[in-house]
Amino acid sequence: MSDAVEWSIHCCTVLAALPEDQALPAARLAEFHDVPPAYLAKALQALATAEIVESRPGPHCGYRLARPPADISVLDIVLAVDGDGTAFRCSEIRQRGPAASPGSSAYRRPCGIARVMWRAEDAWRAELSAVTVGDIVTELFATVPPEQLVRGAEWIQQVDVRRRSRT
Amino acid sequence: MSDAVEWSIHCCTVLAALPEDQALPAARLAEFHDVPPAYLAKALQALATAEIVESRPGPHCGYRLARPPADISVLDIVLAVDGDGTAFRCSEIRQRGPAASPGSSAYRRPCGIARVMWRAEDAWRAELSAVTVGDIVTELFATVPPEQLVRGAEWIQQVDVRRRSRT
Repeated sequence: MSDAVEWSIHCCTVLAALPEDQALPAARLAEFHDVPPAYLAKALQALATAEIVESRPGPHCGYRLARPPADISVLDIVLAVDGDGTAFRCSEIRQRGPAASPGSSAYRRPCGIARVMWRAEDAWRAELSAVTVGDIVTELFATVPPEQLVRGAEWIQQVDVRRRSRT
Repeated sequence: MSDAVEWSIHCCTVLAALPEDQALPAARLAEFHDVPPAYLAKALQALATAEIVESRPGPHCGYRLARPPADISVLDIVLAVDGDGTAFRCSEIRQRGPAASPGSSAYRRPCGIARVMWRAEDAWRAELSAVTVGDIVTELFATVPPEQLVRGAEWIQQVDVRRRSRT
Protein backbone atom coordinates (compact mmCIF):
# COMPACT_ATOMS: atom_id res chain seq x y z
CA MET A 1 0.00 0.00 0.00
CA SER A 2 1.37 3.41 -0.91
CA ASP A 3 2.17 6.06 1.71
CA ALA A 4 -0.24 8.34 -0.15
CA VAL A 5 -3.15 6.34 1.29
CA GLU A 6 -2.20 7.46 4.80
CA TRP A 7 -1.72 11.07 3.67
CA SER A 8 -5.00 11.08 1.76
CA ILE A 9 -7.08 9.86 4.69
CA HIS A 10 -5.48 12.50 6.93
CA CYS A 11 -6.17 15.18 4.29
CA CYS A 12 -9.82 14.16 4.01
CA THR A 13 -10.27 14.43 7.79
CA VAL A 14 -8.78 17.95 7.71
CA LEU A 15 -10.99 18.94 4.76
CA ALA A 16 -14.01 17.53 6.61
CA ALA A 17 -13.33 19.93 9.47
CA LEU A 18 -12.84 23.05 7.29
CA PRO A 19 -15.07 26.08 7.82
CA GLU A 20 -17.83 26.38 5.20
CA ASP A 21 -16.12 29.16 3.22
CA GLN A 22 -12.62 27.75 3.16
CA ALA A 23 -10.59 25.53 0.87
CA LEU A 24 -6.99 24.35 1.17
CA PRO A 25 -4.51 24.26 -1.71
CA ALA A 26 -2.47 21.08 -2.15
CA ALA A 27 0.70 22.91 -1.04
CA ARG A 28 -0.92 23.91 2.28
CA LEU A 29 -2.22 20.38 2.89
CA ALA A 30 1.33 19.12 2.30
CA GLU A 31 2.68 21.71 4.71
CA PHE A 32 0.07 20.87 7.35
CA HIS A 33 1.04 17.19 7.23
CA ASP A 34 4.73 17.70 6.46
CA VAL A 35 4.63 15.38 3.46
CA PRO A 36 6.17 15.76 -0.05
CA PRO A 37 4.04 18.30 -1.97
CA ALA A 38 4.45 16.74 -5.42
CA TYR A 39 3.40 13.27 -4.30
CA LEU A 40 0.50 14.61 -2.27
CA ALA A 41 -0.68 16.70 -5.25
CA LYS A 42 -0.85 13.52 -7.30
CA ALA A 43 -2.90 11.77 -4.62
CA LEU A 44 -5.27 14.74 -4.38
CA GLN A 45 -5.78 14.63 -8.13
CA ALA A 46 -6.70 10.95 -7.81
CA LEU A 47 -9.18 11.87 -5.06
CA ALA A 48 -10.63 14.55 -7.34
CA THR A 49 -11.01 12.09 -10.20
CA ALA A 50 -12.94 9.81 -7.83
CA GLU A 51 -15.12 12.80 -6.83
CA ILE A 52 -14.03 12.57 -3.20
CA VAL A 53 -12.53 16.08 -3.21
CA GLU A 54 -13.11 18.97 -5.57
CA SER A 55 -10.89 21.83 -6.52
CA ARG A 56 -12.36 25.29 -6.03
CA PRO A 57 -10.97 28.12 -8.22
CA GLY A 58 -10.65 31.80 -7.36
CA PRO A 59 -9.09 33.81 -4.54
CA HIS A 60 -10.07 31.17 -1.94
CA CYS A 61 -8.91 28.39 -4.21
CA GLY A 62 -8.06 24.95 -2.98
CA TYR A 63 -9.54 21.58 -2.20
CA ARG A 64 -12.74 20.81 -0.33
CA LEU A 65 -14.57 17.53 0.13
CA ALA A 66 -16.90 16.90 -2.80
CA ARG A 67 -19.38 14.98 -0.65
CA PRO A 68 -20.48 14.99 2.99
CA PRO A 69 -17.90 13.21 5.21
CA ALA A 70 -20.49 10.55 6.09
CA ASP A 71 -20.74 9.67 2.38
CA ILE A 72 -17.02 9.01 1.91
CA SER A 73 -15.81 5.64 3.15
CA VAL A 74 -12.20 4.85 3.92
CA LEU A 75 -12.43 2.24 1.17
CA ASP A 76 -13.40 4.97 -1.34
CA ILE A 77 -10.14 6.79 -0.50
CA VAL A 78 -7.95 3.67 -0.60
CA LEU A 79 -9.30 2.56 -3.98
CA ALA A 80 -9.07 6.09 -5.43
CA VAL A 81 -5.40 6.41 -4.45
CA ASP A 82 -4.08 2.88 -4.88
CA GLY A 83 -6.42 1.64 -7.61
CA ASP A 84 -9.27 -0.83 -7.31
CA GLY A 85 -7.42 -3.96 -8.41
CA THR A 86 -7.07 -6.89 -6.06
CA ALA A 87 -3.83 -7.33 -4.10
CA PHE A 88 -3.77 -11.00 -5.07
CA ARG A 89 -3.40 -11.48 -8.80
CA CYS A 90 -4.32 -14.91 -10.15
CA SER A 91 -2.09 -15.68 -13.12
CA GLU A 92 -3.95 -18.93 -13.81
CA ILE A 93 -0.91 -21.08 -13.27
CA ARG A 94 -3.31 -24.03 -13.03
CA GLN A 95 -3.56 -23.71 -16.82
CA ARG A 96 0.19 -24.05 -17.26
CA GLY A 97 2.66 -26.88 -16.90
CA PRO A 98 2.44 -30.60 -17.73
CA ALA A 99 -0.81 -31.29 -15.81
CA ALA A 100 -2.89 -28.56 -17.42
CA SER A 101 -5.97 -29.36 -19.51
CA PRO A 102 -6.06 -26.68 -22.20
CA GLY A 103 -9.61 -25.67 -23.07
CA SER A 104 -11.17 -27.48 -20.09
CA SER A 105 -14.51 -26.04 -18.98
CA ALA A 106 -13.29 -26.40 -15.38
CA TYR A 107 -11.23 -23.26 -15.91
CA ARG A 108 -14.36 -21.15 -16.31
CA ARG A 109 -14.76 -21.10 -12.53
CA PRO A 110 -12.04 -19.08 -10.74
CA CYS A 111 -9.25 -21.15 -9.22
CA GLY A 112 -10.01 -22.29 -5.65
CA ILE A 113 -6.84 -20.61 -4.41
CA ALA A 114 -7.82 -17.27 -5.95
CA ARG A 115 -11.29 -17.56 -4.43
CA VAL A 116 -9.82 -17.97 -0.94
CA MET A 117 -7.53 -14.98 -1.44
CA TRP A 118 -10.27 -12.77 -2.85
CA ARG A 119 -12.71 -13.74 -0.07
CA ALA A 120 -10.15 -12.37 2.40
CA GLU A 121 -9.88 -9.16 0.37
CA ASP A 122 -13.68 -8.87 0.43
CA ALA A 123 -13.52 -9.00 4.25
CA TRP A 124 -10.86 -6.26 4.22
CA ARG A 125 -12.99 -4.11 1.88
CA ALA A 126 -16.10 -4.67 4.00
CA GLU A 127 -14.29 -3.33 7.08
CA LEU A 128 -13.03 -0.26 5.24
CA SER A 129 -16.35 0.45 3.57
CA ALA A 130 -18.07 0.46 6.98
CA VAL A 131 -16.00 3.41 8.24
CA THR A 132 -16.52 6.90 6.85
CA VAL A 133 -14.48 10.09 7.01
CA GLY A 134 -17.25 11.34 9.30
CA ASP A 135 -16.60 8.48 11.73
CA ILE A 136 -12.88 9.23 11.74
CA VAL A 137 -13.42 12.93 12.38
CA THR A 138 -15.79 12.12 15.27
CA GLU A 139 -13.22 9.75 16.75
CA LEU A 140 -10.36 12.24 16.30
CA PHE A 141 -12.30 15.03 17.98
CA ALA A 142 -12.87 12.71 20.94
CA THR A 143 -9.25 11.64 21.31
CA VAL A 144 -6.93 14.36 19.98
CA PRO A 145 -5.80 16.79 22.74
CA PRO A 146 -7.88 20.04 22.56
CA GLU A 147 -4.76 22.19 22.28
CA GLN A 148 -3.79 20.30 19.12
CA LEU A 149 -7.25 20.86 17.59
CA VAL A 150 -7.01 24.57 18.43
CA ARG A 151 -3.51 24.85 16.97
CA GLY A 152 -4.67 23.11 13.79
CA ALA A 153 -7.74 25.34 13.43
CA GLU A 154 -5.63 28.49 13.97
CA TRP A 155 -3.06 27.42 11.41
CA ILE A 156 -5.83 26.74 8.85
CA GLN A 157 -7.43 30.16 9.52
CA GLN A 158 -4.06 31.78 8.93
CA VAL A 159 -3.91 30.30 5.43
CA ASP A 160 -6.48 32.83 4.20
CA VAL A 161 -4.97 35.64 6.31
CA ARG A 162 -1.60 35.01 4.67
CA ARG A 163 -3.26 34.92 1.24
CA ARG A 164 -4.90 38.32 1.83
CA SER A 165 -1.62 39.80 3.03
CA ARG A 166 0.01 38.79 -0.26
CA THR A 167 -2.66 40.49 -2.43
CA MET B 1 1.36 -8.94 -3.02
CA SER B 2 4.11 -10.83 -4.80
CA ASP B 3 3.42 -13.43 -7.48
CA ALA B 4 5.37 -15.87 -5.32
CA VAL B 5 2.41 -16.06 -2.94
CA GLU B 6 0.28 -17.63 -5.68
CA TRP B 7 3.08 -20.01 -6.68
CA SER B 8 3.75 -20.99 -3.08
CA ILE B 9 0.14 -21.88 -2.31
CA HIS B 10 0.00 -23.98 -5.47
CA CYS B 11 3.27 -25.69 -4.52
CA CYS B 12 1.99 -26.50 -1.03
CA THR B 13 -1.14 -28.12 -2.47
CA VAL B 14 1.00 -30.28 -4.77
CA LEU B 15 3.31 -31.22 -1.89
CA ALA B 16 0.25 -32.08 0.22
CA ALA B 17 -0.80 -34.62 -2.39
CA LEU B 18 2.65 -36.28 -2.75
CA PRO B 19 3.02 -40.00 -2.07
CA GLU B 20 4.57 -40.76 1.35
CA ASP B 21 8.01 -41.61 -0.02
CA GLN B 22 8.38 -38.77 -2.49
CA ALA B 23 9.80 -35.26 -2.44
CA LEU B 24 9.99 -32.69 -5.22
CA PRO B 25 13.06 -30.53 -5.94
CA ALA B 26 12.49 -26.81 -6.47
CA ALA B 27 13.31 -27.15 -10.17
CA ARG B 28 10.58 -29.77 -10.65
CA LEU B 29 8.02 -27.68 -8.77
CA ALA B 30 8.90 -24.77 -11.05
CA GLU B 31 8.53 -27.02 -14.10
CA PHE B 32 5.18 -28.38 -12.87
CA HIS B 33 3.80 -24.85 -12.49
CA ASP B 34 5.73 -23.28 -15.37
CA VAL B 35 7.10 -20.47 -13.18
CA PRO B 36 10.64 -18.97 -13.00
CA PRO B 37 12.85 -21.49 -11.12
CA ALA B 38 15.10 -18.93 -9.40
CA TYR B 39 12.21 -16.91 -7.96
CA LEU B 40 10.35 -20.04 -6.90
CA ALA B 41 13.48 -21.38 -5.19
CA LYS B 42 13.64 -18.21 -3.12
CA ALA B 43 10.00 -18.58 -2.11
CA LEU B 44 10.53 -22.22 -1.16
CA GLN B 45 13.47 -21.21 1.02
CA ALA B 46 11.19 -18.72 2.78
CA LEU B 47 8.63 -21.50 3.29
CA ALA B 48 11.40 -23.71 4.73
CA THR B 49 12.50 -20.95 7.12
CA ALA B 50 8.90 -20.72 8.32
CA GLU B 51 8.88 -24.54 8.77
CA ILE B 52 6.05 -24.96 6.27
CA VAL B 53 8.14 -27.13 3.95
CA GLU B 54 11.32 -29.08 4.62
CA SER B 55 14.10 -30.06 2.33
CA ARG B 56 14.92 -33.77 2.28
CA PRO B 57 18.48 -34.76 1.25
CA GLY B 58 19.63 -37.91 -0.56
CA PRO B 59 18.65 -39.72 -3.75
CA HIS B 60 14.97 -38.80 -3.31
CA CYS B 61 15.86 -35.24 -2.39
CA GLY B 62 13.44 -32.38 -2.61
CA TYR B 63 10.77 -30.57 -0.71
CA ARG B 64 7.94 -32.03 1.35
CA LEU B 65 5.48 -30.34 3.67
CA ALA B 66 6.96 -30.01 7.15
CA ARG B 67 3.56 -30.29 8.83
CA PRO B 68 0.21 -31.95 8.06
CA PRO B 69 -1.76 -29.93 5.43
CA ALA B 70 -4.49 -29.23 8.02
CA ASP B 71 -1.88 -27.49 10.20
CA ILE B 72 -0.76 -25.03 7.51
CA SER B 73 -3.05 -22.06 6.98
CA VAL B 74 -3.04 -19.95 3.85
CA LEU B 75 -2.06 -17.05 6.11
CA ASP B 76 1.05 -18.99 7.22
CA ILE B 77 2.14 -19.19 3.58
CA VAL B 78 1.36 -15.56 2.74
CA LEU B 79 3.27 -14.24 5.76
CA ALA B 80 6.22 -16.57 5.14
CA VAL B 81 6.60 -15.42 1.54
CA ASP B 82 5.65 -11.74 1.73
CA GLY B 83 6.67 -10.98 5.31
CA ASP B 84 4.43 -10.41 8.31
CA GLY B 85 4.39 -6.61 8.24
CA THR B 86 1.12 -4.76 7.77
CA ALA B 87 0.20 -3.46 4.30
CA PHE B 88 -0.72 -0.10 5.86
CA ARG B 89 2.27 1.61 7.41
CA CYS B 90 1.52 4.41 9.86
CA SER B 91 4.24 7.01 9.60
CA GLU B 92 2.75 9.02 12.47
CA ILE B 93 2.14 12.07 10.35
CA ARG B 94 -0.13 13.30 13.15
CA GLN B 95 3.11 14.07 15.01
CA ARG B 96 4.37 16.27 12.19
CA GLY B 97 3.44 19.69 10.85
CA PRO B 98 2.28 22.89 12.56
CA ALA B 99 -0.55 21.33 14.59
CA ALA B 100 1.50 18.57 16.21
CA SER B 101 1.98 18.42 19.99
CA PRO B 102 5.49 17.00 20.47
CA GLY B 103 5.68 14.74 23.50
CA SER B 104 1.91 14.55 24.00
CA SER B 105 0.73 11.45 25.84
CA ALA B 106 -2.12 11.23 23.28
CA TYR B 107 0.39 9.77 20.82
CA ARG B 108 0.83 6.66 22.97
CA ARG B 109 -2.41 5.28 21.54
CA PRO B 110 -2.17 4.36 17.84
CA CYS B 111 -3.62 6.93 15.45
CA GLY B 112 -7.35 6.41 14.80
CA ILE B 113 -6.70 6.14 11.07
CA ALA B 114 -4.11 3.40 11.57
CA ARG B 115 -6.50 1.53 13.85
CA VAL B 116 -9.18 1.49 11.14
CA MET B 117 -6.70 0.26 8.55
CA TRP B 118 -5.24 -2.43 10.80
CA ARG B 119 -8.69 -3.65 11.86
CA ALA B 120 -9.39 -4.32 8.16
CA GLU B 121 -6.10 -6.19 7.86
CA ASP B 122 -7.07 -8.26 10.91
CA ALA B 123 -10.28 -9.25 9.08
CA TRP B 124 -8.19 -10.24 6.05
CA ARG B 125 -5.84 -12.29 8.21
CA ALA B 126 -8.74 -13.98 10.00
CA GLU B 127 -10.15 -15.18 6.67
CA LEU B 128 -6.81 -16.53 5.50
CA SER B 129 -6.01 -18.19 8.82
CA ALA B 130 -9.34 -20.05 8.69
CA VAL B 131 -8.39 -21.89 5.49
CA THR B 132 -5.73 -24.59 5.47
CA VAL B 133 -3.77 -26.30 2.72
CA GLY B 134 -5.86 -29.35 3.62
CA ASP B 135 -9.06 -27.43 2.83
CA ILE B 136 -7.66 -26.30 -0.51
CA VAL B 137 -6.60 -29.81 -1.50
CA THR B 138 -10.05 -31.14 -0.59
CA GLU B 139 -11.70 -28.44 -2.69
CA LEU B 140 -9.33 -28.99 -5.63
CA PHE B 141 -9.94 -32.73 -5.63
CA ALA B 142 -13.67 -32.00 -5.81
CA THR B 143 -13.45 -29.51 -8.68
CA VAL B 144 -10.39 -30.25 -10.83
CA PRO B 145 -11.21 -32.56 -13.79
CA PRO B 146 -10.12 -36.15 -12.97
CA GLU B 147 -7.97 -36.36 -16.10
CA GLN B 148 -5.96 -33.38 -14.87
CA LEU B 149 -5.40 -35.01 -11.47
CA VAL B 150 -4.26 -38.21 -13.20
CA ARG B 151 -1.93 -36.30 -15.51
CA GLY B 152 -0.43 -34.46 -12.57
CA ALA B 153 0.05 -37.63 -10.54
CA GLU B 154 1.70 -39.40 -13.49
CA TRP B 155 4.06 -36.51 -14.12
CA ILE B 156 5.07 -36.48 -10.45
CA GLN B 157 5.70 -40.27 -10.48
CA GLN B 158 7.89 -39.81 -13.51
CA VAL B 159 10.17 -37.44 -11.57
CA ASP B 160 11.64 -40.37 -9.64
CA VAL B 161 11.64 -42.60 -12.73
CA ARG B 162 13.68 -39.97 -14.58
CA ARG B 163 16.01 -39.65 -11.60
CA ARG B 164 16.65 -43.40 -11.54
CA SER B 165 17.29 -43.47 -15.28
CA ARG B 166 20.03 -40.87 -14.83
CA THR B 167 21.87 -42.81 -12.07
